[in-house]
Parts: sequence; structure tokens; C-alpha cells
Amino acid sequence: MKHKAIVVGMGNIGRNVIKAIMDSPDFELIGVIRRVPDQKAETKEYANVDEIGVKPDVAILCVPSVMSQETAKFYLSKGINVVDSFDIHKEINDYVANLEDIAKRHNKVAMLACGWDPGTDSLVRAIFKIFAPKAITYTNFGPGMSMGHSVEARRVKGVKEAVSITLPLEESKHGRKVYVEPDGSLSKEDIYKEMKQNKYFENDPLEIVLVDDVAPYYKTSHGVKIVMDNEENHFEFGMRIDNPTVTARVLLACARASLRQPKPGAYTIIDVPLSYMLEDDRKENIRKLV
Amino acid sequence: MKHKAIVVGMGNIGRNVIKAIMDSPDFELIGVIRRVPDQKAETKEYANVDEIGVKPDVAILCVPSVMSQETAKFYLSKGINVVDSFDIHKEINDYVANLEDIAKRHNKVAMLACGWDPGTDSLVRAIFKIFAPKAITYTNFGPGMSMGHSVEARRVKGVKEAVSITLPLEESKHGRKVYVEPDGSLSKEDIYKEMKQNKYFENDPLEIVLVDDVAPYYKTSHGVKIVMDNEENHFEFGMRIDNPTVTARVLLACARASLRQPKPGAYTIIDVPLSYMLEDDRKENIRKLV
Repeated sequence: MKHKAIVVGMGNIGRNVIKAIMDSPDFELIGVIRRVPDQKAETKEYANVDEIGVKPDVAILCVPSVMSQETAKFYLSKGINVVDSFDIHKEINDYVANLEDIAKRHNKVAMLACGWDPGTDSLVRAIFKIFAPKAITYTNFGPGMSMGHSVEARRVKGVKEAVSITLPLEESKHGRKVYVEPDGSLSKEDIYKEMKQNKYFENDPLEIVLVDDVAPYYKTSHGVKIVMDNEENHFEFGMRIDNPTVTARVLLACARASLRQPKPGAYTIIDVPLSYMLEDDRKENIRKLV
Repeated sequence: MKHKAIVVGMGNIGRNVIKAIMDSPDFELIGVIRRVPDQKAETKEYANVDEIGVKPDVAILCVPSVMSQETAKFYLSKGINVVDSFDIHKEINDYVANLEDIAKRHNKVAMLACGWDPGTDSLVRAIFKIFAPKAITYTNFGPGMSMGHSVEARRVKGVKEAVSITLPLEESKHGRKVYVEPDGSLSKEDIYKEMKQNKYFENDPLEIVLVDDVAPYYKTSHGVKIVMDNEENHFEFGMRIDNPTVTARVLLACARASLRQPKPGAYTIIDVPLSYMLEDDRKENIRKLV
């Protein structure tokens, strides 16, 4: 019996989750949820999960992080597991706490912040902490487009379209270079001020570049390097990736984990065993990976 | 209340586990078990766990892999959790199965094959499999001294002392270069034949170098590079380490995990959440790492 999944939201991540589901023999996609369903879409789209007529096992939430909490509560209250790639690091503890009760009340599992950072990078940082509990781990992103920051930049007053590029500075610091198509209502200075109000942009050095068309700056490639050194050891993890492809893979793996997690509640990726995330059975995983 | 640990065996790993325990505020070492206890040792040594007079929570097994199973059974049957760094990859499934019943019968947890490979490298391979379930991951070791292979080489007929160096070849293949002090009973050719009978050496290209003294070849540094590529993504994990230091850290982390694992049984490192392995509480781990 395949796990029945729905995809909620059809942006970059949603489309890639659909591809990931097609590649995974243990999942089937029973529908896509969109505010305005496309009647001619290849995958059947619905405005409301109740229209599907079959109860999904898990809802894979591909909505902006700021909408994730209400969306997650909605599906949990319907008795459906949820997984998302919520990406506001400093709010994750509160987010988990806020969903804990509702998940337990409906005997369901929420897997939260399950992208690549937060997400699999968090696993790598946890492994590094095993190696040297007191050493400092540095996470350096990019250069690459941040999907989360681009989504937020588009919501800023005065902005019609935006692409936010993450530039690694040093020792886990980053700059944000945002290419903006202005809507004409605000000056560059005022757009800068508005963007600095947004929590995605408040802490990092920010440069805004006004352009006629952001399309040439749009790219889905990204990268990260996580490094830790102490006197006797050196540890390094790095990847160059297609960002939505990898985010989608992690979401699907964590959707699978949510269905194997024995106790209801809200979890992050470090709270569940890696073997729960993999398609093969435990013995096969031990044989191939351990 | 600190977790009460004992260290079983006082080779390279055992000595480093003691250091790791001293660095960990949540553990205390209540004794070291050795065949022939050193009465003048800084840490109290015993021939038998019953002499300690206090029941340990976990026994950290630092004995050669070939002795691990009987040792693990002994401590489990006394109602003590066990953790080891058993390193014979292809026997891990059987090993887990062999300890499952005895662990459950005594309501205890065994964490098996918890070094860095098998061990944390297994976690990295599992993460890579999330990223691209069908891509091939290559694990290339060294150059560096293999502790497991050196221990086994010393047990080969005709060998007085030995140091086994792992040389990376390509695509997860390795050569073994073994520096041997012969005991005079066998020729180099016969030592080669004997060593080839040992399962640690049967599959890889083997070179034996006879020396008067293996000491100059002895080193504790080692390294690994784990690489996966597919059309659009590149993933890489690498480390250069002091081998026994890192093995000891992973053992201690998994000793901690064994005490948090809610259900008795035998587990590998991919079967338990990473948060169980870390000293901090869950919220702190989420804040710092996720």
C-alpha cells in the first residue's frame, strides 16, 4: 500500500515534490491543493482537501514559511500528518511547541523545518557536535539564490518582483544582494527601509539593485559549506545543488519519517532516526549504508 | 545524576573514551574492566564488573570486533546497556539480530557499530541517500592506519607486531599495506597467505612489508572522503582526524543515546535520533543546530 500524499502549494518546491513523489515507489500523489486550482493541470488540483474524497496520509506543505503554521494546524486538525520546510531558524522552537498539542490531540505527526537548512545541514551540524562538542561549526551559504528570501522580498512594499542572492562573507556571516523590479510606488531608499523591517533581512548586510527585469538573476542553484576544526581534527561538508530539487527530496523523506514515527507530536529532523527517512527497509539500509 | 559508565578494554580506544568521559559533564566513569587490572592505574581497574559494587548504566566496549559479541552478551545479561564500534560491515545485520533478543529480555539497549565507519559515515551516507536515492555514493578512506586491520594483522600467524595502512584506490576500493615485524616462524609468503585467510584482508589488494620495528609506521591520523554526484548536484563530506579520539566521541554519544532510547533492543546509529546522542537538551539542540 502506497502512502497517500497531497502537495499544498504549487511554487518551485511544490512542483519538485511532485517529481520526487513520482520517483518514489512507496508514495502516490492523490492531489494538489491550490487557492486557484488549474482545471487543466496534469495532476488533479483542488481548492480544498475534502474534495479529493480520499483521506491523505500526509500533507507536504510547500507554502511560504509565514503561512506554514496556520496551514499545518489546518491539516493536523483534519487528522493528516504534515511536513514542511519552515526556514526561520530562531522561531523553530516556538513553532514546534505551537504544533505539539494539536498534533497529539489528533494523534498525528508534524515534521517541521525539513529542508536542507534548516534540515539536512542541521543533521550535519549535529554530527559535527558529536565529534567535538565544544568546537565551533561554521555554515557558509552560497553564492546562490535564496528561495525563502526571494519570496519575502517580493512581499515588501514597493517591490513588483525580486530575486535575493546569498553571498558568503566569513564565519557563518552572509550578505544579501536583492535584485528588485520596483512597482514605482517607492524610491530605492524607501524599499531598502521597508525590506530592513522584514525579519529575513534585518540582520544581514543588504544591497538592493534596481533592475527592469529580475529574470536573468533568477537561478535555482545554491551551495553550502559547513566546516569545523579543532587542534587535531578537520571536518567538512559541502554541496552544490539545485535548491528546489534537494528541498523536495528532504521533504519527501521526512513525510515518510512522519508515517513511521511511533508517537504523535511535532518534531524536527534531529528528533527522528535517519532510517525512518529512507525508502528501503531497515535491514537493507543497514546492509547498504552502515 | 550523571550516567555511570564503565570502559571495557584499555587499548587505544579505551584510553580515549576515558578522556571523552572526563570532558562530558553528564557522564562519570565508575571503572575500567581489564583482563589483568593495573593496580596502580589512575582510573580504578577491575577484572570483573561485579567487583565495582555499583551497577553501571552503560558498558562502553573497547575490545576487538571479534570479541565484541560475547562481551556485549555478557553485559546485557547483567542488565547493562552496551555500545561498541564493531567494524565488520557485512556482519552488522547478523550482529544486530543476534543481540536483539538478549537486549529485550533484559530490557536493555545495545548500540552497535558506532564508530566513524561504520558509524557517523553511515549517517552521512544515509543523508546522501535522502538527496538522491538512486545515485552512487563513494567512500574513500585514508591514507591512514586502520586500527581494526592492525589489531587483526597482529593476530595472524607468524606476526609479532603489525601496522595496517589503508590506501584509497578509486570508487570505494582500497589497498592494504601492512608493515609486519615477523616472529620468525613463517616466511613473508606464508604470512601473506595466512593474512589473506583473515576476513579483514581477503578482499582488498594486500602488500606486506617486513620491518624490524613497526613503531615508525604507527600513526593515529586517518581520513575519509564521501562523495556523491548526479546530473545536477554534488555532495561531499570529508574529515582528517585523530582516529581513536573521534571513535571515542562517537562511542560516548551513542552510549548517551542508548540511555534515551525508549524501547529495548539492538540498534545501529541510523536507528536512533541524532538529538539522543547530544549532551544538550532537545530545545537547546534545536536552537543551536537546527
